[in-house]
Amino acid sequence: MINQTMTLLGKKRSVIRDIFEYANKRRAQIGAENVFDFSLGNPNVPAPADVNAAIRELLDTEDDAALHGYTSAQGAAPVRKAIADDLNRRFGTAFHADNLYMTCGAAASLKIILIALSSEGDEVIVFTPFFPEYSVFVTTAGMKLVQVPSDELSFQIDFDKLASAITPSTKAVIVNSPNNPSGVVYTAETVQKLAALLTQREKEYGHAIYLISDEPYRELVYDGIEVPYLTKYYTDTVVCYSYSKSLSLPGERIGYILVPDEVCESADLYAAVCGAGRALGYVCAPSMMQQVVAKTTGQVADLNVYKGNRDLIYNALTDYGFTCIHPDGAFYLFVKSPEPDATAFYEKAKEFDLMLVPADSFGTPGFVRIAYCVSTDMIRRSLPAFLKLAKSYGLC
Amino acid sequence: MINQTMTLLGKKRSVIRDIFEYANKRRAQIGAENVFDFSLGNPNVPAPADVNAAIRELLDTEDDAALHGYTSAQGAAPVRKAIADDLNRRFGTAFHADNLYMTCGAAASLKIILIALSSEGDEVIVFTPFFPEYSVFVTTAGMKLVQVPSDELSFQIDFDKLASAITPSTKAVIVNSPNNPSGVVYTAETVQKLAALLTQREKEYGHAIYLISDEPYRELVYDGIEVPYLTKYYTDTVVCYSYSKSLSLPGERIGYILVPDEVCESADLYAAVCGAGRALGYVCAPSMMQQVVAKTTGQVADLNVYKGNRDLIYNALTDYGFTCIHPDGAFYLFVKSPEPDATAFYEKAKEFDLMLVPADSFGTPGFVRIAYCVSTDMIRRSLPAFLKLAKSYGLC
Repeated sequence: MINQTMTLLGKKRSVIRDIFEYANKRRAQIGAENVFDFSLGNPNVPAPADVNAAIRELLDTEDDAALHGYTSAQGAAPVRKAIADDLNRRFGTAFHADNLYMTCGAAASLKIILIALSSEGDEVIVFTPFFPEYSVFVTTAGMKLVQVPSDELSFQIDFDKLASAITPSTKAVIVNSPNNPSGVVYTAETVQKLAALLTQREKEYGHAIYLISDEPYRELVYDGIEVPYLTKYYTDTVVCYSYSKSLSLPGERIGYILVPDEVCESADLYAAVCGAGRALGYVCAPSMMQQVVAKTTGQVADLNVYKGNRDLIYNALTDYGFTCIHPDGAFYLFVKSPEPDATAFYEKAKEFDLMLVPADSFGTPGFVRIAYCVSTDMIRRSLPAFLKLAKSYGLC
Repeated sequence: MINQTMTLLGKKRSVIRDIFEYANKRRAQIGAENVFDFSLGNPNVPAPADVNAAIRELLDTEDDAALHGYTSAQGAAPVRKAIADDLNRRFGTAFHADNLYMTCGAAASLKIILIALSSEGDEVIVFTPFFPEYSVFVTTAGMKLVQVPSDELSFQIDFDKLASAITPSTKAVIVNSPNNPSGVVYTAETVQKLAALLTQREKEYGHAIYLISDEPYRELVYDGIEVPYLTKYYTDTVVCYSYSKSLSLPGERIGYILVPDEVCESADLYAAVCGAGRALGYVCAPSMMQQVVAKTTGQVADLNVYKGNRDLIYNALTDYGFTCIHPDGAFYLFVKSPEPDATAFYEKAKEFDLMLVPADSFGTPGFVRIAYCVSTDMIRRSLPAFLKLAKSYGLC
């Protein structure tokens, strides 16, 4: 009677959720200060002060019924214009308000664009490791998820593997740079090669292959690294964005989809985005938060905390003998398991009350993910436990 | 290439949207004060003062990262408990936090519950007139919408027609009381008869028929009218709620789904709700607004304004000779067209700069909807135009 696919999806807790519950149990048993929970990508850095200031100002100055009222389904036009202007200023692009469709965050952005593009039998390519919900969004849109392993050393795209994976059924390719869970940022060279390969296949097959750039971590990069803006490299690029990480507002559900004019069948695709948003029950993105992000365009939560955390944990863990991918962005450290089975390693780490996430569900077995969007103090206090863990494997 | 269903859905503007654009054009031509726009169900009464006070208090007292951070997918447990307690206090029910799943408003609630219930070939019954998006939500969930005309005089349920419409394929029945667009509230007698008929058919077919109570207008009732709480009348009832109207927060997208323990396969259905929310890209309902509605449970925007508006427009229009359904709730007046074609009547009304909505898309031809959630002053100024319109039909 009940939809079984949905029941299973609701009952199948993610590994991360399981760890979260276990960590809670341990906190009750041994005290919160003795549990080192690196499982959740929930930003611990507060939103920029201007975010709450913007909310207060809106409450003080705006007409109440308008502030909390419906916006158009695409989002308030002045909000979309402010965002387009900010993008143009930062990336030298020429977007306008009607390229943007405001959403309830990155998950909504992805789901809406996938439904807008979906035809039965279509394939969507993702690169491992990838955010596990991609699989849910793609398959429940009636499409097939095709996983392409990344280069084993650099975690950039492995173009031989990608070349074999693209077929005439490929409708879209999802990239996520800076990457969850590896922290890797695609170089301009990677992006250029990707654009060249996709363009060649578009010509060969005679139809568009859409590049979906899922980039909630765009602004979370360190050491002056630049994240190429993909619409400038490849015409058929759509961007899915969320303010969850840049403004530390993950619970407020606010983001957008960008459909540039140059994209193949742009007008129809934008209409399909509107149609998909409507069919999925998204009436409009939260109205006050739309205005808040327009008022704080270009601002970013305090990156120094994340950079300090990254340096602290990356340096310590490599010192202790762990093999870690050097993260240029996001707030994740991807660590090679010292034994082939990452779940066994995760269980071992639990003995030291270190909560890591085995990366099997991200499509890359043999690794764990460490989310370092936590207090620097907790990282510092966790290091003796990591040292013991390393010693238990004879790494140092 | 692009999903055609979604493109069409995005391009097909609703009648209401068309009227909205026309009204804007006329405002520019003849001045806003001369255009009488009754087309939109966008509350003009501000949110209760405690709503903005709650936001300010949360900004002042809550930890920022927690305030704007992810909640669990179901919604924050204390929020769900506060809502359950409020329902129990008001309706003598015995709900608990885990009966509730917080959503991004009524459209999300409906879409999620329909996906959770959907199997190919299932039928969903609605009573005309009905909110036109029901058709979008039901058909894009792969189910068939079955329209049952309401009683022509009372706009209560016509049980003979309903009895013929229920089949072994009936998965769910949607009711919306107080009703958009008729303003009618189902009586206890109607609800009792509905429960008896559904219970009898459940036994006959050997499977559950779910009653989906879409009730964003529950608190918007006048003259002490009671809106029966449907879970107390029929076991297999789920409730879809939104704070859009009761708290005048339609843009903020906050509501819930209630799945009582007694409902058939309750645990599986609740899991399917969680699964459907996940598959549709709803990560959690907006976090700060969850806390706001918990802090303002039981409050309602100023109903006196709507009651004053209702009395003013109902009394005037019936005086002028129009036939109107007396609205006990919501903020809509349903007016019989003086000529058979409601669209012709709507065009005629436009000549007097009265913007009404022909109800054909609500499944009830021959009527127009007047949304009186507007300023009382505009209603007052519009009356001479209504009088001229009545005279043009020889009604007075």
